[in-house]
Amino acid sequence: MLPTKAYAAPAARAPLAPFAFERRDLRPHDVLIEIAYCGVCHSDLHQVRDEWGGAQFPMVPGHEIVGYVQAVGPEVKNFKVGDAAGVGCMVDSCRTCPSCQEGLEQYCETTGMVGTYGGREPGTGRPTYGGYSNQVVVDEKYTLRVPAGLDLARVAPLLCAGITTYSPLRQWGVGAGHRVAVLGLGGLGHMAVKIAAAMGAEVTVLSTSPGKEADAKALGAHQFVVTKDAAQLKAAANSFDFIINTVSAPLDLAAYLGLLRRDGTMILLGVPPEAPQIPAFSLIGKRRRIAGSLIGGIAETQEMLDFCAAHNLMSDIELIAIKDINEAYERMLKGDVKYRFVIDMATL
Amino acid sequence: MLPTKAYAAPAARAPLAPFAFERRDLRPHDVLIEIAYCGVCHSDLHQVRDEWGGAQFPMVPGHEIVGYVQAVGPEVKNFKVGDAAGVGCMVDSCRTCPSCQEGLEQYCETTGMVGTYGGREPGTGRPTYGGYSNQVVVDEKYTLRVPAGLDLARVAPLLCAGITTYSPLRQWGVGAGHRVAVLGLGGLGHMAVKIAAAMGAEVTVLSTSPGKEADAKALGAHQFVVTKDAAQLKAAANSFDFIINTVSAPLDLAAYLGLLRRDGTMILLGVPPEAPQIPAFSLIGKRRRIAGSLIGGIAETQEMLDFCAAHNLMSDIELIAIKDINEAYERMLKGDVKYRFVIDMATL
Repeated sequence: MLPTKAYAAPAARAPLAPFAFERRDLRPHDVLIEIAYCGVCHSDLHQVRDEWGGAQFPMVPGHEIVGYVQAVGPEVKNFKVGDAAGVGCMVDSCRTCPSCQEGLEQYCETTGMVGTYGGREPGTGRPTYGGYSNQVVVDEKYTLRVPAGLDLARVAPLLCAGITTYSPLRQWGVGAGHRVAVLGLGGLGHMAVKIAAAMGAEVTVLSTSPGKEADAKALGAHQFVVTKDAAQLKAAANSFDFIINTVSAPLDLAAYLGLLRRDGTMILLGVPPEAPQIPAFSLIGKRRRIAGSLIGGIAETQEMLDFCAAHNLMSDIELIAIKDINEAYERMLKGDVKYRFVIDMATL
Repeated sequence: MLPTKAYAAPAARAPLAPFAFERRDLRPHDVLIEIAYCGVCHSDLHQVRDEWGGAQFPMVPGHEIVGYVQAVGPEVKNFKVGDAAGVGCMVDSCRTCPSCQEGLEQYCETTGMVGTYGGREPGTGRPTYGGYSNQVVVDEKYTLRVPAGLDLARVAPLLCAGITTYSPLRQWGVGAGHRVAVLGLGGLGHMAVKIAAAMGAEVTVLSTSPGKEADAKALGAHQFVVTKDAAQLKAAANSFDFIINTVSAPLDLAAYLGLLRRDGTMILLGVPPEAPQIPAFSLIGKRRRIAGSLIGGIAETQEMLDFCAAHNLMSDIELIAIKDINEAYERMLKGDVKYRFVIDMATL
């Protein structure tokens, strides 16, 4: 077993503190990654606070992991010591159900995907621990290659925020000629702007805050609509092919659905605490659609990393020391981050 | 002007009673149809009761119209006296916007479609009056050809219930290999069963009433799920590609969304009085979708009639005299009709 250092939440809503545990010894297909950086996803906070229920403690959060391969099992074919590598939201799945066979492991139909943290390790049943730690052991099948030449700290958030926005844009065939609106300019939203623009779409940021316009345009947005301004909202009615909705706060969906053109689609990525109400006529009257999407499969995550490398897209981040993680959580709650905290794991 | 007999609601919630008015003289592209039968749609009742707001009284309901051409304007090309013809939910639209140009006149983006009743006649601005009348004048562009050899009384409901279910099934490419569930076995639902089965799908009726199983199977359903039975509901989880939701009563959508497989779509056709709640995770966790659909365009309505003729599909109806329309409304409120009332206009 491999002694591992980490930060963990000992119980729901308790502050994170140093924690020691053991990673498994390498199996034939495993890689051992020394973690350089780990992004701080809003869902880390949801789970540390057990807001979705069923959380396991102690919890080592973190599923936006990048680092360097330190060792490989004897059967590993795609990684060698020294390679830059990443791990996202899952570290395993059943591998045999139709969804796994189609490369959509995030929708695994038998065991469900094994979360990078908060799950149970196949074989041993031990809890999985995430990336707020110095190293991680992962089957190479669930390990991503990080293209050369990228700033690893800024790559880390791609493993969740990047793929979560890339996957639906890709699935719905977004490209030139499409008008895409992004609702919520946080970790997910800022990546949605960058990726949709790189795909050739005309991108509009929808925001309640006029003050965010310059930032939105710096990220690549072509238009900015202040949703509190009735005239701007009216001018934008029936105009978007897609709305990427990253907001997990309570929201008047009907008002935003009205911004979709006929056959337009709102893609839900956030999970508000209460189920939003959807007036049926908002959908029926213009044949509009609402669709969900959950991260992305392993092959698609690799494709996303390669796409981001080709377009030089990375997350805008604020690098922090791990001792500051609890303060970072407080700031996230206030939306006070542009746009993702990333932990420099050298500070562990 | 053409003196016309009808039944009308003089005011919201008032019983329908005999009413006389004048149809316009034929314009060059108009056809005059002597109405043989008119279906009774649940939306007639909603509008007579002004449940959607904005109703115009006196109101002559009826948008499931079939009959025979009695006269044609000098420029009419596609109809001649004696032809069987039909009129559905609209009698005009702007004809120039992108949706009209694409043959999706029901989503007309400038004036909106002109309803067969409750709208305003282009040119004159006079109220439009529907099919609970002895004749109707319609531009041939908004008139449907009724294929020969069909029972006209049973064809009438195809003009709304038929196209409302056909259009989304067609748009979403339903066919062999798909599992389609139908929620609500009324006027729309019973046509959804027939059409989806004719398209080659495996059809399941979802119902709270075990007593409807025999009827569902007689209509062409292959399976029947009693949704009050937790074991049956559990067995049906994650199994449908599509759910055609025709229910306009309040409904726990989340329970039904769980029956969709990954990438499955619930198609909303009914408009519940209160906006339903949609737990985001029901969509996100399986990349499911909810879509609206509104009747169909004119070309697609013609296609539907031809499809129904080719497959010998018609509505199951109860033929009534027009004097019994108020009683029929009462029975509709109780769901006491299999599956559509149709008025024999010879009784007017």
